[in-house]
Amino acid sequence: MHSDRLRSQIEFLLEIDKLKSILRQTLLTDGRRRENSAEHSWHLSIMAILLAEYAKDHPVDLFRVLKMLLIHDLVEIDAGDTYCYDEAGNADKAEREEQAAKRIFGLLPDDQAAEFHHLWQEFELRETAEAKFAAALDRLQPLLHNYQTDGRVWQKHGINSHQVYSRNQSIEEGAPDLWQYAVRIIVDCIDRGWLAK
Amino acid sequence: MHSDRLRSQIEFLLEIDKLKSILRQTLLTDGRRRENSAEHSWHLSIMAILLAEYAKDHPVDLFRVLKMLLIHDLVEIDAGDTYCYDEAGNADKAEREEQAAKRIFGLLPDDQAAEFHHLWQEFELRETAEAKFAAALDRLQPLLHNYQTDGRVWQKHGINSHQVYSRNQSIEEGAPDLWQYAVRIIVDCIDRGWLAK
Repeated sequence: MHSDRLRSQIEFLLEIDKLKSILRQTLLTDGRRRENSAEHSWHLSIMAILLAEYAKDHPVDLFRVLKMLLIHDLVEIDAGDTYCYDEAGNADKAEREEQAAKRIFGLLPDDQAAEFHHLWQEFELRETAEAKFAAALDRLQPLLHNYQTDGRVWQKHGINSHQVYSRNQSIEEGAPDLWQYAVRIIVDCIDRGWLAK
Repeated sequence: MHSDRLRSQIEFLLEIDKLKSILRQTLLTDGRRRENSAEHSWHLSIMAILLAEYAKDHPVDLFRVLKMLLIHDLVEIDAGDTYCYDEAGNADKAEREEQAAKRIFGLLPDDQAAEFHHLWQEFELRETAEAKFAAALDRLQPLLHNYQTDGRVWQKHGINSHQVYSRNQSIEEGAPDLWQYAVRIIVDCIDRGWLAK
């Protein structure tokens, strides 16, 4: 007890508090402030529980989906949140995040460091049904928020519908029905003038 | 597709965004602002993954623990966060939260409303091993934050060590080793003058 193991685990848990101060571009649905990556991860996790029935390869292992979503953004503590439409930022994103994963997960006891690193890599690679579904939610959620806030963030950054389609099309790989729903949202945003054609 | 079912699910997911604006008394570990209940729920979920080995009745069903922790504070959207040392606020807390659960979970399709309501009740009753472990984390986390921020919130509200002991003693029911760890923290906080004896 009060072993090095517990000390490492607590040190990690204190370190990851920093994710609550990593701001995303996305606004809360009431538009009052930017969302942070910790609350975003929480939101996605509840989405996963509720929307698992729409996963392409249903049933997915929802437990693993939850673990992936809870930790998928931890690397941003070092690497920052890279806006998905920021081409320059995305050029070296993978390298920055890999370094971050090494340091942050490296705070944990070896077995848990390995588990978290694997979960994070699984999410990033988007090859398994679980990772594809998790990634689909990670794209759908900001779309819902943009829809609720009249596309303000898209307008601020001069994003057009072509970019939104190409960014979000991979929702289809993880959850085809949710992609159909997303398309309706995008079309409606264009119709309302919230998203440039 | 685009059924009433999906519409209800999305409506619920938009509604729960409000949890990100429910502020707790606890500060972030850097002391810069109060924590909100959404990011708190995220933090507890990662704690559960990492600390499951300390659950009293190990192994606990970690999947159910995660689902409980992710949703346990949703009732605060209507009922607000009640500070654990606020006696007046705690007098009618159960009733306010039961009303909130009915309304908020009631937005969901019946099967999912029932699942969430049961999970929330399980957490509140603290009878199962999973609920006891989840509740232990819900107490340990603010203790860690108070420790990191020199007990500022305790001092602000005039909380003494007797109150902290009696509030947190139930950690022992869910995770005895973590209670030993918590006791060391409390003692150290008293020694440093951050918590009144």
